[in-house]
This record gives sequence, C-alpha cells and structure tokens, in this order.
Amino acid sequence: MVVRRPVVPFMEEMLGSVHEVLDHGFVRVVDYMGDDTSVVQAARVSRGEGKKSPDEDRALIRYLMRHGHTSPFEMCEIKLHVRLPIFVARQWVRHRTASINEFSGRYSVLSPDFYLPEPGAVGRQSPSMRQGRGEALESAGADSVRAAIGNASEAAYATYQQLLGEGSAETGLARELARAVLTLNYYTEWYWKIDLHNLLHFLDLRLRSDAQLEIREYARVIARIVQGWVPVTFEAFVDYKLDAVSLSKPAVALLRRSLAGESVDWENSGLSESERRELEERLFPPSR
Amino acid sequence: MVVRRPVVPFMEEMLGSVHEVLDHGFVRVVDYMGDDTSVVQAARVSRGEGKKSPDEDRALIRYLMRHGHTSPFEMCEIKLHVRLPIFVARQWVRHRTASINEFSGRYSVLSPDFYLPEPGAVGRQSPSMRQGRGEALESAGADSVRAAIGNASEAAYATYQQLLGEGSAETGLARELARAVLTLNYYTEWYWKIDLHNLLHFLDLRLRSDAQLEIREYARVIARIVQGWVPVTFEAFVDYKLDAVSLSKPAVALLRRSLAGESVDWENSGLSESERRELEERLFPPSR
Amino acid sequence: MVVRRPVVPFMEEMLGSVHEVLDHGFVRVVDYMGDDTSVVQAARVSRGEGKKSPDEDRALIRYLMRHGHTSPFEMCEIKLHVRLPIFVARQWVRHRTASINEFSGRYSVLSPDFYLPEPGAVGRQSPSMRQGRGEALESAGADSVRAAIGNASEAAYATYQQLLGEGSAETGLARELARAVLTLNYYTEWYWKIDLHNLLHFLDLRLRSDAQLEIREYARVIARIVQGWVPVTFEAFVDYKLDAVSLSKPAVALLRRSLAGESVDWENSGLSESERRELEERLFPPSR
Amino acid sequence: MVVRRPVVPFMEEMLGSVHEVLDHGFVRVVDYMGDDTSVVQAARVSRGEGKKSPDEDRALIRYLMRHGHTSPFEMCEIKLHVRLPIFVARQWVRHRTASINEFSGRYSVLSPDFYLPEPGAVGRQSPSMRQGRGEALESAGADSVRAAIGNASEAAYATYQQLLGEGSAETGLARELARAVLTLNYYTEWYWKIDLHNLLHFLDLRLRSDAQLEIREYARVIARIVQGWVPVTFEAFVDYKLDAVSLSKPAVALLRRSLAGESVDWENSGLSESERRELEERLFPPSR
Repeated sequence: MVVRRPVVPFMEEMLGSVHEVLDHGFVRVVDYMGDDTSVVQAARVSRGEGKKSPDEDRALIRYLMRHGHTSPFEMCEIKLHVRLPIFVARQWVRHRTASINEFSGRYSVLSPDFYLPEPGAVGRQSPSMRQGRGEALESAGADSVRAAIGNASEAAYATYQQLLGEGSAETGLARELARAVLTLNYYTEWYWKIDLHNLLHFLDLRLRSDAQLEIREYARVIARIVQGWVPVTFEAFVDYKLDAVSLSKPAVALLRRSLAGESVDWENSGLSESERRELEERLFPPSR
Repeated sequence: MVVRRPVVPFMEEMLGSVHEVLDHGFVRVVDYMGDDTSVVQAARVSRGEGKKSPDEDRALIRYLMRHGHTSPFEMCEIKLHVRLPIFVARQWVRHRTASINEFSGRYSVLSPDFYLPEPGAVGRQSPSMRQGRGEALESAGADSVRAAIGNASEAAYATYQQLLGEGSAETGLARELARAVLTLNYYTEWYWKIDLHNLLHFLDLRLRSDAQLEIREYARVIARIVQGWVPVTFEAFVDYKLDAVSLSKPAVALLRRSLAGESVDWENSGLSESERRELEERLFPPSR
Repeated sequence: MVVRRPVVPFMEEMLGSVHEVLDHGFVRVVDYMGDDTSVVQAARVSRGEGKKSPDEDRALIRYLMRHGHTSPFEMCEIKLHVRLPIFVARQWVRHRTASINEFSGRYSVLSPDFYLPEPGAVGRQSPSMRQGRGEALESAGADSVRAAIGNASEAAYATYQQLLGEGSAETGLARELARAVLTLNYYTEWYWKIDLHNLLHFLDLRLRSDAQLEIREYARVIARIVQGWVPVTFEAFVDYKLDAVSLSKPAVALLRRSLAGESVDWENSGLSESERRELEERLFPPSR
Repeated sequence: MVVRRPVVPFMEEMLGSVHEVLDHGFVRVVDYMGDDTSVVQAARVSRGEGKKSPDEDRALIRYLMRHGHTSPFEMCEIKLHVRLPIFVARQWVRHRTASINEFSGRYSVLSPDFYLPEPGAVGRQSPSMRQGRGEALESAGADSVRAAIGNASEAAYATYQQLLGEGSAETGLARELARAVLTLNYYTEWYWKIDLHNLLHFLDLRLRSDAQLEIREYARVIARIVQGWVPVTFEAFVDYKLDAVSLSKPAVALLRRSLAGESVDWENSGLSESERRELEERLFPPSR
C-alpha cells in the first residue's frame, strides 16, 4: 500500500525497539507524525510560500527557533510508551500540554518492580542547592542506603500483597486502597503523547543539571530519539535554547562595558549570585 | 521501506484529495496519527490488559465514549489544511486545544477570493433565535443581497490593491495595514492540527443546528473524514454524544412519572422553554 | 479603602477557615475572583446587552449551563490550599487546566502524617466494578487492614528518617532520593487555582459514585464552597450536569416508543448493560 | 465588610477608569486576583517555608523569574475589558491560555466605529522585514491613504446597514451573514481573563519591535497596569525577559574568545545575520 505521509526511516526503526532507562524502566516509540519538513511546510503556509531548497529549509527552522516561533514545531507529534518510577511520574506529569494514559492501580495489580539507585547515584544532600544531590556516598554508605531502600520497598510490596489477599481471599482489600502502601519508587507506565514544541520544552527543563538525576536519564534517551527524528530542529534547539545563555538587562550593561575595554568587577556587579556564577562558567571558563 | 505505524488506507487515499467547501474553500488531510486500535491500545495500558478481540475493542470504545473518558481519544491526531472565510476562522479559532499555522497578511498579499453565499443560504434574521438565520429570502431579495455583498467585497479588494500600490509604488502601504480594509468574507487558510477527542468536541458544537451555516459545512466534510478514519469511534460519538439527549434533573423527574403511567403536563412542567421544545422534538415527535 | 471588585461575604468568611478532610487533610480558600454576576456580565458582553433583572440573570445562567456555553463560567476563579494523600494528588493532577504549586520533597522534609482509612472506608475489592470498592470489611478484618497499613506507613517513615540521617549525619542522603521510600498515603499539599468552568468539570467527575472514595471527600467539601460562592451557577450545574441523565441515540429511540404506549423490553434492548442499568435506576426506580 | 483577600490600592483605583488606546479602543480592568505576595506565597508552599522579609520576597521573585519558574506567576489573575479592531483581535486570540467572551456579531449589530490610523502610523511596507512597517509616508501620501481607508470602511458599513434592512425591513438579512461585509478595522470588544505568567508572555511578544504597531499600543497600556499591580514581578520581568539578550551556543563561543582578549571578526562569525545584528545593537552599540 502506498503511504503518503512523511515517513522517517530512523523512527520506523525505533518503533521496534525498547530503550532501557534506570533499572526497570524504558522508553519505546509507539507512533509519530511529521518530520523536519513538516515544520517548514507549516511555516511556509503562514508566509504564503511554496517549496524551497534544503538549505533554505534549514535556515528557516533556525530562524523560527531563534525567534521563539512555536506553532510550526507543534505540527509534529510523538507518542511514547514509558515505564518509570512513580516519583519520576509525579514530576513528569506537571508538563500539562500532553496526553497521558497511565496504568491504573485501581484496575490492576502493580508489578513488584521498584527503583533501586545504582551506587553511583546514591548522593548526599547537596550543601549548595537545597533541591539537589551532591557527591555520591562512599561505598559502604551507598551499600547501606541501597539495602535500606531495598528492604523498605520489599516490605511495602509484601504488605500490598497481603492486603490484596492473594491466596487467602480473607481480606481482599480493594486494589485502589491497597496500592496506597506501595513506596514511591515502584514503577508505573503510561502512553505519553506530545507535540514537538512542548517536547523540546520538556527536554529544556529536564536535561538541565538542576533536574533530578532520574528524570534526566529519561530526558537523555528521549533527546537521542528526537535527534534522529528531526535532526535539523534538534540542532537548532541545542544552539538556541539548550546551550544558549540568557543575559539579563544588568548583565548586558556590564558585558557591554567589558567589551568596550572597561575593567568590570563581576564579583561586585550587583548581579545575583547564581547569575554571576552561570556567567562565569559560560563566559569566563576557569581554564582561561 | 517497512512502515510499522498504524496505517489507514482510507486516510492514505484522502491525503491526495481536496474536499471543496463553500465557493472557494476546502479541507485537505495533510497527515494523521493512529486509528481506532490506538484508542483501544491506550485504554488497555490503563487497565493493564493485552490485546483482545475486535468485538471487545468495539465494546471498549463505546464504553469509553459513554462514560466520558477522554484521554484515550486524545491518542489520535489529525492535521488538516483548510481554506475558509475570515469570519468562519474567527469562530473556529475559539477551539483552543489545537495547533494553528495561518497564512499571514503581514507577510503576503491575500488572494482576491471572497465568500458569496449561494441564493439558498441568503437567509433572513431568525425571529425566534437571536443568533440565527431563518428562511431564505425570495429570489429577488437574494439576488440583491448577493449583488450588494459582491460589490462591497470587490470594492474592498480594489482599495486593498490601491493601498499596496501594486503597479504604482507611489503609496506602497505596509501589507499589515492595507489588509485592514478587506471584508470579513475574504478567504484565509491554515494548517490545523488537533487530537481526536478535541476534534469530536469541535464536531459536536459545529454540527449543531445553532452553529452558523458556513462553519457547519466544514464540520460536515470533516465528519465524513473522521467516519472513514476511525469508524468505530465515530459511531460511538454519534450514539453517545451527537444524537444523545441530555435530560435535566427536573426533566428526569417528569419523565419518570410519565413512564410510571402518570399524566404529565409538559407544557406547564416548569422546564425552560428550550428544554421542553427539545424534549418534544426528540421524545414526542409530531407524527405520534 | 474602597474595594470595587465583586465581593462575596460567604467567601470572605471562608478565607479564615480550614475544612478538614479525611484524617489529616484539609481544604482552605486562599482567594477567589468573581461571582454569579461575573458569569452574567461576561455573557452580556457577548450579546451586547446591558444590566437586567436578577430573574433574567438566573435564567441566563441556566441557559448557558444547559447549552454547554463554557467561557462565561471561566470568568470566575478560585485558589485553594489543599492537603491530601499522594495517591489522591496523583488523580487530581490529571485535571490539566489548573495551576499548581506543590510542596516539594526535594526542598523540604515531608511531615510524618499518613492517611489511615476509617474502618467504614476499608472496603473489599468490588466484584462488579474492576476499579471499585465494595462493601466494608467486617470489624476484625478492617482492624487488621488498618494495622497493616499503619505499620507499613510508619516503617516507611522510619526508613525515610534514617536515610536523611537526622541526628547522625552519617548517611545524609539527598532528600529527593530519600522520599522515594515513603508510601503513597503520605500527605502532600499544594495551592490549586482553577476557573469555575473547569472546577465544575472536576466536581462532575469526582463527585460521581465511580470516583475513588477519598477524592470524593474532597469534592464534596469543595462543592459546598462552590454552592456558597456562586449559588445560582451551582444549582444550574446540579440540574443540567451533575444530576442530568444522558440518553444515547438508541435509548432515545426506545424511550420514544415507550412513551408512545408501545411495550418495550428494556432487558433485551441492545443497550449496553451499564447504560440500561443507569436508565433503570434513574427512570424506573425499584419503588415503582 | 471585612475583605480578607489581597487588595492592591492601585488596582482598585484602576477599576474605575478606562484607558484609551488607538482612536476608538480601550483597556479597562474588570477584576484581578493576587499581588506580588501571592507569587511568593505559592513559591513558599513548594519550599515548605513560612513568611520572610520583603527583601527576601523580592529576591525570591527574581530568582523564580530568572530560572523560568512559571507556576507561582500563574497564581495571579486579571480580567480586562478591551475594545480593539478585528485585525488586532485576530492576532491577540492566538494566545490560547486565556478566557475570552467576545461581542457576537451574530447576536447584535456592530457599532459604526472603525480604526483609522493616525498620519504617523501610515507606514510603508518595510524593505528589510517582510512582515513589517517602515517609515511613515509623507504627508500627502498619508492623507490619501487615510481617505481611502475611511471611504472603504464607511462604504462597508453602509452596505452592512442596507443588508440588515434597518428602516426598510425588506431585506432583513441575518446579522451573522451581514457582518461579513464589514472591513477588518471595525472594532469588536471582549472580556479577556488571563493569569500573570501568560500575561507576561503576551507582553514579551507584543511589546517587541516586530509586533504590529497597533497591538503594541495595547501591550504598552497593559504593561503599565501590570507594573502598578505587581511592581516587583514586573521589574524582574523587564530585567530577565523583556530586556534580556539570549546568546546562542555559537555566540557564546565567540564572546568567550572576545572576552579572553582574542580578536573576533563578528562580521564573518557564521552567526545568522539577524543574530549578529541583535548582538551588535545590544553589546556593541554604535557609540563605541
């Protein structure tokens, strides 16, 4: 049968494979719609233009990304099957412009899979960032943390099964209530459908170093999929969003003076500390 | 190349054809994602179920529609290229859960096509419904109305061209300003992308008799496309939404008494007039 | 100071009080915008009308509700502070058209409060509804369930504290990771802001008998607040949405024959079982 | 009566006044919810923090803005009554995360007010920007453009009235159809309700120099209202969004070399022309 829709060989290949994430999670491409040319095609409708060369297409995509045009990127869509710990799902679901069908613990019994961080992921509370994770614990500490998490998770599942009355039928508590004793590291799964613009925004937030390590793992896997699906758009996204630096109005003023040859004391510049730190990291790398 | 995504032969056929609407408008399918089985597949993830028989799939879709489950229907997506009068576009755009790339009169010069209603569509102001159109004018009246609309539209376009300074370059007004003298019946066009759930909601509102005739024409064409794309979902939509009747709490009370054999005076029932009229039309057809 | 905005005395009163829900939860009104007249006012702008009598206002609100007009009801807004178990929050958050600021377990340490169902809420798995809860367990069974839930929850919190290293500082695991061992019945809290239209939709779904008992408790409390805030709108909502019955196309056909005096065998009507059951409950109550 | 909600004297004052925009348009504050402290309050719930000092509040708001946190800014809401030309409304409505009740030309007869640009706004098509307006026409040209717009608009309204059959009742065309002969510069009006985060995004796009002059006029008036309503948030918005400069990944690389004392040829840097131009304007002003 003739298929007239845009077909991306990379994605058709993807449809058959599961990308493992963390210890029991995965990302799997279920379906997709459109490709780089769909972005261009939609933008050209706005401009009343016809087809142009690949070079002009690339320049247009980069123009659209740079100037914050969002609707052409909404013209592509992707549907993923994701298996993820509940605490990751709780962060993920805050991206509201997406469609979700999640496994329901009211209908069915959850599987006994839970997330146990690898030793390297067992990090201390960050002293500098209240919501962050610092360096990994030394080996013995990590082992003891992992044992504690493992024991707590297994105990929770044992209680879950007991409440469900598997085997005994004595209790037979409603599934919707029994699941409440499971710990937040148990795995759930869902179908997640989102357009490319909102997916890039998801990646922009979830690839950042201040995102929680576990959701970052998912973002990395998805980023690679997006890169293969819409390579020109993805490159523009990296250049103009992900690796871009935003200079505030006061930072612009300081930088201008610095570029004009004036001596500028960034330490006492009046910029917020976090802003100054980011500028230093990006504009004045230590190697200098 | 192997295409693994759901493919709907009816829709692949559609991708090549333009459906004319009104005098210069059209609807054209640009792309789509998913089919009836995609709805089922997403719902079965929620339930932790695997594949089942076609009969069970159909029953599940009808169950989902009947109980107002919306997310499985969000798992299908369609992209349409639509050409439509501006006053229709102004109603259409109020459906916010959709992505749009519209032809921009800032970038490009609009074409000289405007909507001129057919004689049968030249209706009087409805005496009974403030926002409605009543019976068509008699032939002479319709002719004179059409002439007036045609003259006004052509005069507007002549001014538009004059302002743009085509040929003379003397004036050369900015396109973004010149377009403001065009009348609301000029055609615009856009790419419109929406998920199946929100599309059915669009159809539910825009197929209704109180929707403006012109947008209803578009809704009818789109409804036929949806019927060919996801036939089981569309049938469920007709049965449970489009042709369903909602009985208010007071109407239920009255109906219950009527079914119990009591004599009920619907005229003096306390129901709102419009509600009573709808019930009469649907439950007590005049032929009785 | 003069306050010109619409002020609802009932709501100003509300702002000072906490409504307890479940064992450690609450709902508290933080702020609100608009009242019944705001709905009317917005609708009158659409119609190009000025002020009218209270009776006409009431009739207009009921007309809007009955005909599915949604935008005038979006003109009122409410902000609630809610404390709720995490498994309830996971259902709640699926209502996407709302703004949320939730307590973050990455930043701060969760309190030791968890949800322990009252004996009357400890229900068996429903035999008839896969996602439901049937009758309560007998006293001894409920006690043993409650003990199991209590023990599991307390054990989880003990592990949480151990991982956080309170007191010892030896481990000091990152808060974002430690929280993953808490069970789903621990309480979280958030600010939740939503417009009246979407709030009514929330209530329509969450007051239903097939919603989980725990979220229904929250819905009931919020319903009482809405009733005091916008009494005319709430009454219209009950009459036309909450207590309305939707008749499918086949059900309308059957009912029509029944009302015309024909004998109709509802048992073998071809309606889905759930539809028939609902009709029986609503239209042919057993007392008949 | 005691009002417990946050009250902003500046806004209560606003509620009584109309801000004129263009020749027949206006912006009027109908209602609002929250203030700067509401942003802080919501963010502190996320962090599990209590009240702090005004200085810390200001620092927190700036931190939130700088790091792209959006949900705390969604906690404030505003409702405006706006009168605006239809072509402006068509741009405005593309901001989807807002609630609108617009005057309906199906229900009521539009007023005879149309937008006639002031001589200074009668600009040529920009040679450098396809969607833009260049310098104003010389006096005679502007006069002739204004006359052409005025004549076309008045002729359209005359036809509109003729079709409506005012006075004659002979034709009495349906209002929904008659309005289609009005030109796009006729005024409509609506209630527009939006949260602060999405309002700032609206301002960010519509205050820009590449936005159409007419919608920029509205954005300017609204910006002044926002500045009075939530002064700390507005200042942070200006510093971190409106007047910020985004440096792309390649621009960062170049800038770093420049700051390290290397000589950089920006002309041949490989940056897109528009990006280079913006950098020059902002970082290397001509006065240098």
